[in-house]
Amino acid sequence: MIGQDAACCPGLASAPLDEDQAAELAKVFKALGDPVRLRLLSMIASRGEGGEVCVCELTPAFDLSQPTISHHLKLLRQAGLIDCERRGTWVYYWVLPTALDRLAVVLKKPTAVEALA
Amino acid sequence: MIGQDAACCPGLASAPLDEDQAAELAKVFKALGDPVRLRLLSMIASRGEGGEVCVCELTPAFDLSQPTISHHLKLLRQAGLIDCERRGTWVYYWVLPTALDRLAVVLKKPTAVEALA
Repeated sequence: MIGQDAACCPGLASAPLDEDQAAELAKVFKALGDPVRLRLLSMIASRGEGGEVCVCELTPAFDLSQPTISHHLKLLRQAGLIDCERRGTWVYYWVLPTALDRLAVVLKKPTAVEALA
Repeated sequence: MIGQDAACCPGLASAPLDEDQAAELAKVFKALGDPVRLRLLSMIASRGEGGEVCVCELTPAFDLSQPTISHHLKLLRQAGLIDCERRGTWVYYWVLPTALDRLAVVLKKPTAVEALA
């Protein structure tokens, strides 16, 4: 999981990443480097902040077994991108509010950030 | 490689990605999902727009053979993140100006983009 504060994480283009920073970030990008996980994440994230999705709504969108979907969701969770809670029969997933924003900050060129300031 | 125009690519959080969009994006994130490639990319990107780096400056930063470094650079190039040119003995690499920005747009929450508008 990347740091709690966007300001803590230098942009990819502002200075060469050190080994620890690269190892942390690579975990998150690796979690995003799969089409099923990207679709799952976008299905969850498009509910907006505070929104959540039942796993029973996610599974039917894929031609994959529920254990496979659950495995992909687990990898997204381990990367700090989503969280979940079991309530009764189903598990509900939501996006961690600042996780995607933090990645966006890391990817932004310093010049682009300055242009917005 | 993702589309030429950031406006073409919906944000992850604005609507569920379709299979084609997810497959395209996953390729780029997969290229970023490795610490060596992230460090290489940040070494190249931190030269800024128009800046370039000789492979002879990249290799000494890693405890890896030059063919291994070249392989990682090839994967970054195939993902549309960098480009290169051979001049004489060495190959020179530069970041593709909008590639990282486009990814940042994809990751941004719609609310965050609206807040900047």
